[in-house]
Amino acid sequence: MSSVNPVAVLGVGLIGGSVGLAIRKNLPDTEVRGYDVADGVLERALEMGAITESCESIEDAVTGAKACIIACPVGKLAEVVKEALKFSDEDCVVTDVGSVKTAIIASLDEDGHKRFIGGHPLAGAEAAGVEHAVAELFEGGVWYLTPTEHAEGVLYERLYRMVADIGGRPQAIDADTHDRLMATVSHLPHVLANVLAEQAASTLTEEGERLPATGPSFRDMTRVAGSNPSIWTDIFLENSEAVARETDALARMLNEVTTVLRSGDRSALDKWIVSAREHRKHLLAPQLDGEKVYQLRVPVPNEPGVLAKLSLALGEAGVNIADMNLYPAPDMSSGAITLWIAGEDQLNKAEEVVSGLGYAAVRVDTGSA
Amino acid sequence: MSSVNPVAVLGVGLIGGSVGLAIRKNLPDTEVRGYDVADGVLERALEMGAITESCESIEDAVTGAKACIIACPVGKLAEVVKEALKFSDEDCVVTDVGSVKTAIIASLDEDGHKRFIGGHPLAGAEAAGVEHAVAELFEGGVWYLTPTEHAEGVLYERLYRMVADIGGRPQAIDADTHDRLMATVSHLPHVLANVLAEQAASTLTEEGERLPATGPSFRDMTRVAGSNPSIWTDIFLENSEAVARETDALARMLNEVTTVLRSGDRSALDKWIVSAREHRKHLLAPQLDGEKVYQLRVPVPNEPGVLAKLSLALGEAGVNIADMNLYPAPDMSSGAITLWIAGEDQLNKAEEVVSGLGYAAVRVDTGSA
Repeated sequence: MSSVNPVAVLGVGLIGGSVGLAIRKNLPDTEVRGYDVADGVLERALEMGAITESCESIEDAVTGAKACIIACPVGKLAEVVKEALKFSDEDCVVTDVGSVKTAIIASLDEDGHKRFIGGHPLAGAEAAGVEHAVAELFEGGVWYLTPTEHAEGVLYERLYRMVADIGGRPQAIDADTHDRLMATVSHLPHVLANVLAEQAASTLTEEGERLPATGPSFRDMTRVAGSNPSIWTDIFLENSEAVARETDALARMLNEVTTVLRSGDRSALDKWIVSAREHRKHLLAPQLDGEKVYQLRVPVPNEPGVLAKLSLALGEAGVNIADMNLYPAPDMSSGAITLWIAGEDQLNKAEEVVSGLGYAAVRVDTGSA
Repeated sequence: MSSVNPVAVLGVGLIGGSVGLAIRKNLPDTEVRGYDVADGVLERALEMGAITESCESIEDAVTGAKACIIACPVGKLAEVVKEALKFSDEDCVVTDVGSVKTAIIASLDEDGHKRFIGGHPLAGAEAAGVEHAVAELFEGGVWYLTPTEHAEGVLYERLYRMVADIGGRPQAIDADTHDRLMATVSHLPHVLANVLAEQAASTLTEEGERLPATGPSFRDMTRVAGSNPSIWTDIFLENSEAVARETDALARMLNEVTTVLRSGDRSALDKWIVSAREHRKHLLAPQLDGEKVYQLRVPVPNEPGVLAKLSLALGEAGVNIADMNLYPAPDMSSGAITLWIAGEDQLNKAEEVVSGLGYAAVRVDTGSA
């Protein structure tokens, strides 16, 4: 087994700092050398114990390191990866944490591919700043690794084990596939959240209105609208062609929907909705754990303690909640808790618990998992 | 004050049954006459106390009634409204609970407009069946009313008060505006959830894949994909032109995004994301209660009791949770609870509570409310 000691972390923000904390927590003998261009970051990281040594250059940090994790902004990535490869030893594995992988790999030659193995932990990409770093950030989350055919086996194995040691679930994936998947399941939803917010604004401001009371779907679907522009502009640009193919295809699908709506074709609409349900169920099946997921709505007064009382009672009864939403009324005086529960046994138990507390439980038939 | 006693409920499913239960709970002297075409529904409703009398025809139910609430499927609405108006007395207010309002109003003449006042309670539209009816379904939820200029004042006032008496928040709105708003904030998001699920299926099935581990955005954005087709096909058709305008406009916006992505125009992307953030914040301001809403992510082991422990402690500390999501890892062994908390004071308190329990708290900077 080849040790990762010492590790170099280049860019000590939320992700880099969390990598450092996680290494110190899980591999306490490992030294963590930090490098960052921003003022005061390394001092803060040292105080927090996210790094054990503050370095003044990339060269300082990576010389003699066994592994180098690059967590700088996506726009600087290509440059920093090249420097790290240049100054580090032949047996140092170099990785990054960016959410787009093809471009950085394409910028390297075959020699670079031996030691650079792209990475993408799914946790926490939206946060910023070492002050929010925590050792548990990667706990249980998938951490994609994108080795090329030239990757050195021993280096890949070392990186893989380090990711697992700090709590992540390493999962190898081809870089092209990774970027295409992210375009579909992450970047496209972000684009849609933005266009939906824009579209609502343009419709509603015709009359100077704000959004009236609505069901939760608009709020849910626009939650990521306007996510940190400095991060997302980079992501969209790095993966621009894959995302553009998605937006283009989606626009064509919307045009088909427009045509069907205007033609009033009931059976086409029916078929389309049923197909969307089946597709979502199939796509999410691994995440939804195979079991049918039920939805239970519980109208409650919205005050501190209600959610606690309810979830405490559910916990005592052994009910495991797969997902939960709380929708307060506009004045926060009342609301409804929606619970997603896997399996009918658990659902029945949950209904008993809710009734036992004197609340009403509405089983919502969404027809989908 | 004019009484609503007796009330006729035509169509005693989840909504109709809940109206009946809510009336019996809040206005216990009021008789509730029920009519439904489905087998066994009225017997069940009588047993549950949702109605006090089972009627054999619309005429039976509405003769002598002071208010008539129609909660049948949208496709039957026009016909049932006409029958209700025909058989009821001149001082009976007739209303419905459908989620599209213009078509039904257009189907009536001026005489009909005197007594028919459209309604749309926002709660629970997705559920089905009187067995899930609860008296608290409308508690704290907005209940739109769409009187025309011909509506009789005394009838409108009676309906308004009944809605308030059973826990709803009556809110008058022009029917055209209502349908346009719903097209934007409810029907369009449903269309998008469907096309996004379809699009992901078509991209991923090229290689026979299922959805890989992803962040929560895809799951959130497709949650309503494939919602009850028998309800949603009707809704899309009833509001087809307003929804078609939205899908058409959105496709055009997506085409613009495609162009910007392919041109690599960084400043256009930046501006677009910032604008989406501002628009969402402005649109949701009344719902978000004016205060900045913070997001806190807490990685936790996913087992019964964790959520309870956490929310109990938050409740005891007086922290009010505006919204909450729980994202389990694929094998359900661990996960992360995301809390949305309004105001910095509350956020600080929440962080203390979470740390005090030995969990990590990651403040997520989404840059938006």
